[in-house]
Amino acid sequence: MKIGFVGLGHMGNPMVKNLLKAGFDVTVYDKSAEAMQALAAAGAKPASSLIELAKGAEVLITMLQTGDQVKDVCLKKEGLFENSLPDVLYIDSSSIEIAASRELHHEAGLLGVCMIDAPVSGGVAGAEAGTLTFMVGGEEKVFNRAKPILEKLGKKIIHAGEGGHGQAAKICNNLILGVSMIAVSEAFTLAKKIGLDPKKFFEISSNASGQCWAMTKYSPVPDLVENVPSNNGYKAGFMAKMMLKDLLLGMHAAENAQASVPLGAVATELYSLFVGQGNGEMDFSGIIKMLMGE
Amino acid sequence: MKIGFVGLGHMGNPMVKNLLKAGFDVTVYDKSAEAMQALAAAGAKPASSLIELAKGAEVLITMLQTGDQVKDVCLKKEGLFENSLPDVLYIDSSSIEIAASRELHHEAGLLGVCMIDAPVSGGVAGAEAGTLTFMVGGEEKVFNRAKPILEKLGKKIIHAGEGGHGQAAKICNNLILGVSMIAVSEAFTLAKKIGLDPKKFFEISSNASGQCWAMTKYSPVPDLVENVPSNNGYKAGFMAKMMLKDLLLGMHAAENAQASVPLGAVATELYSLFVGQGNGEMDFSGIIKMLMGE
Amino acid sequence: MKIGFVGLGHMGNPMVKNLLKAGFDVTVYDKSAEAMQALAAAGAKPASSLIELAKGAEVLITMLQTGDQVKDVCLKKEGLFENSLPDVLYIDSSSIEIAASRELHHEAGLLGVCMIDAPVSGGVAGAEAGTLTFMVGGEEKVFNRAKPILEKLGKKIIHAGEGGHGQAAKICNNLILGVSMIAVSEAFTLAKKIGLDPKKFFEISSNASGQCWAMTKYSPVPDLVENVPSNNGYKAGFMAKMMLKDLLLGMHAAENAQASVPLGAVATELYSLFVGQGNGEMDFSGIIKMLMGE
Amino acid sequence: MKIGFVGLGHMGNPMVKNLLKAGFDVTVYDKSAEAMQALAAAGAKPASSLIELAKGAEVLITMLQTGDQVKDVCLKKEGLFENSLPDVLYIDSSSIEIAASRELHHEAGLLGVCMIDAPVSGGVAGAEAGTLTFMVGGEEKVFNRAKPILEKLGKKIIHAGEGGHGQAAKICNNLILGVSMIAVSEAFTLAKKIGLDPKKFFEISSNASGQCWAMTKYSPVPDLVENVPSNNGYKAGFMAKMMLKDLLLGMHAAENAQASVPLGAVATELYSLFVGQGNGEMDFSGIIKMLMGE
Repeated sequence: MKIGFVGLGHMGNPMVKNLLKAGFDVTVYDKSAEAMQALAAAGAKPASSLIELAKGAEVLITMLQTGDQVKDVCLKKEGLFENSLPDVLYIDSSSIEIAASRELHHEAGLLGVCMIDAPVSGGVAGAEAGTLTFMVGGEEKVFNRAKPILEKLGKKIIHAGEGGHGQAAKICNNLILGVSMIAVSEAFTLAKKIGLDPKKFFEISSNASGQCWAMTKYSPVPDLVENVPSNNGYKAGFMAKMMLKDLLLGMHAAENAQASVPLGAVATELYSLFVGQGNGEMDFSGIIKMLMGE
Repeated sequence: MKIGFVGLGHMGNPMVKNLLKAGFDVTVYDKSAEAMQALAAAGAKPASSLIELAKGAEVLITMLQTGDQVKDVCLKKEGLFENSLPDVLYIDSSSIEIAASRELHHEAGLLGVCMIDAPVSGGVAGAEAGTLTFMVGGEEKVFNRAKPILEKLGKKIIHAGEGGHGQAAKICNNLILGVSMIAVSEAFTLAKKIGLDPKKFFEISSNASGQCWAMTKYSPVPDLVENVPSNNGYKAGFMAKMMLKDLLLGMHAAENAQASVPLGAVATELYSLFVGQGNGEMDFSGIIKMLMGE
Repeated sequence: MKIGFVGLGHMGNPMVKNLLKAGFDVTVYDKSAEAMQALAAAGAKPASSLIELAKGAEVLITMLQTGDQVKDVCLKKEGLFENSLPDVLYIDSSSIEIAASRELHHEAGLLGVCMIDAPVSGGVAGAEAGTLTFMVGGEEKVFNRAKPILEKLGKKIIHAGEGGHGQAAKICNNLILGVSMIAVSEAFTLAKKIGLDPKKFFEISSNASGQCWAMTKYSPVPDLVENVPSNNGYKAGFMAKMMLKDLLLGMHAAENAQASVPLGAVATELYSLFVGQGNGEMDFSGIIKMLMGE
Repeated sequence: MKIGFVGLGHMGNPMVKNLLKAGFDVTVYDKSAEAMQALAAAGAKPASSLIELAKGAEVLITMLQTGDQVKDVCLKKEGLFENSLPDVLYIDSSSIEIAASRELHHEAGLLGVCMIDAPVSGGVAGAEAGTLTFMVGGEEKVFNRAKPILEKLGKKIIHAGEGGHGQAAKICNNLILGVSMIAVSEAFTLAKKIGLDPKKFFEISSNASGQCWAMTKYSPVPDLVENVPSNNGYKAGFMAKMMLKDLLLGMHAAENAQASVPLGAVATELYSLFVGQGNGEMDFSGIIKMLMGE
């Protein structure tokens, strides 16, 4: 099966490699010629334009950074939608605004493109290992067409609902994650300043009503859980600036849906302060350092 | 073994009953004669004063509402500490300020009282079923003396550290709980307003990085988890005003320890708003109704 | 001088009337035929299309609700910019995103349209009385062309800076306003619950470091200041939903500028809660009722 | 008239000097012998104990840091209340908990001490210049007795209400101040990042609905207002840690009064973060540096 893949950054690069390993014929496109060359060495075919890529692909995948980028790549005259084969399958794995995703689904429908939104969680490590989680929005039959391909890239492929609901699921999930990471950090900071041993507190709270993924799978305090960024000087992992991006997507979604998200809003601002102090590339669990006054 | 028990409210009453069932000889005291009579019928011996109770007990237990109450009962001339037997074991199961608990430990030390602070989680249901969790602060040998008694009242008896650390562990844990309950409520509110099916979102997020006890064991959205207050019109359970009390204990602890707890502070104010609107007796998961605009 | 005016709502209607009173020849356009008829009776000339309006006007004014509306009216092929006279003066008095305003300034520059952004404060009452404040962004010479016209509509016409800075000034100002209205409401709520007479507190704080416009010119407590909505059951005035809109513009501006605005964010969410409880049309000072638990 | 003055710190020292200048006979007491010697040189008489000081004074004044200190000085057996002359006038100028102040008023009443609480604003500069503002709680006739003395120390002597209402007025006022200083700092940070000239924004907002004392009398941006700490590298002035103390008094007052103060709570935590990063001695307007990411 011929796949056209647009967006060859930290995430796109290992995803393409996994598709190649799985035996797919992959054509790639990126603004950066370097990024394309890197994958040509691995067996991908560089395209000279979006048109060329679109004309030769049964499946199109985008992995970009913003809704505006995805709209630009898909909706302009020389873009993917106008130049794709009839009934093409289009998978957008970018994390973008729900509203933008819905607009893309709408345009896709008008032009005969079969689209799903399929943002991921799992980060660069998950992309490399092929263990991403995909949260998918779109019609069931399109979801079913995409599933065998996504299974080469991830371990969990979940159908969240209609078009845009993949984005919605990821945004709502990460809203909880951002807030709970800070809550866990506040609790550990307080425990430490009171003199309560963090190991002891972890043992207690991880078996009690304070238990949450941010504590038990991604502890911001080093040496409580294996293989987490806090053990490694907060080297990302999931960068603070990416958490800020996801929280801001949550704020926009809340505005559009007229939902009140007070803790989400404060978490957003705390990540904004943290990133503004030069910590954007640090793992998002590093926010505990700001609270600790370090 | 002779136990003297002070504080016969919603929690103290079933705890005394469990001690009686376990075969202990229990003398009780409460300002309310009615509360004492209720337990006399179950086999407890009412004391006419704290002095009388203290003079006849090898073990003293208090289950009161505030640090001032505990200090009043223990520290005044006609109180427990001045009138207790040598080397008496004293268990304070009240949830109170860390600073007050430390003061009590200090006075206990001066007067030869062997004290642990042992606040509980599990609520009235846990007190009745004898399935409470005890978070214990104090010397290990005192902890070991208390453990066989506490095992008649609860299922998990955890030694958190030195005097006051039982309180600290509970306070830090409930700080996470209060914040994460609101975070989960915000996420479900947003999901609903976007049109994302709550069951679907639960299925996704409970298996992803948004997972937390507040969602998977105590969902604020009805009919996702069994036996939770949201299934039953938010009948407590753990009352919103009790969550507010615990969050305020957290705020005091943070002030004294000079720790910053921004999300804890906002969660406190949101529970304050919710309780101020007349919802103090509702289960704390009912705060989702405020966010939903219901 | 011939003026074309687009957007005849609560604000646009009285603005057009003041322009007519000042002797200008005003052509008007609105999607609502009714809104046009209402002004025809006052001497304005209804246009049948944006093209017709644009082709006959030396000055164009828009007073719309969102950046998307303004872009729609100005930038499409049958819109104002493509069809305007050479060197036309264009005044956008809508309150919109800074980014949208900058895009409009950019397009205006390409097409020879002399644009200023000139959002107002003062509300419907100010529009009717001709006492609005205009915060203007754009080149000084364009500002000077617009000033004599704006002086028929308002009392203060302030040049804030380059294109978009009119919007920026209003957004930053209203960020302070939204926060300080809630701060004042919190202080009065606390004072009342302590038993401190609000008149006494007003007398003290309005002469001390707590003084702010939200207190001394627009008190949320009735009967402390004359002619404010709190004296009149919180009848707007400046509606809570409009304050929410302005705070959200502030949040977007902060996101784009990578600025942290934690109190702005919480104020936004509190207004979101208040509006979500059905109070969008109430004056924004009515938020004190939510804090009071009324 | 013989005055006994307890508490000779940064504030107490210049206050005593002003009382001496006004011709009063002042006896002083402080735990620090050095602090007493410093004032002996200026003409004050050091007392060897609180008892000695109390026995010889017609008026007693305390200027201490915490409610516990004031209670310690006043209520213990060797303290002021037990050993004072009949009908003595007692002025507590410390900023303390409302609850503690009320307790002191209550004890004073039982022992025939005529008390007012009279916390100040104006800082060290105001104490030195004799231009403090006193917010006074207590009976009117006691207020009238104290007024002539306070007029030697300050310019504004305001009667806020019954016992404790002096504290209440200051706490409520400083709640607004702490919030509005951050709001103004957020707005200036946002303005700067957008490129809007701070001078321009100041000119606009100080004449509009964003006007507040924190902006127009104490601008956190340098060179907009004369004689403010921001012009002088944020040298206090009013130290951040003192603002944090006052905000925490507000949080306690709100808890006791069951009032919700969400913005106050966030402002408290932001000052806690700022102080925790080592900025406690900096002027409180320096918090703009944290927001600016400096």
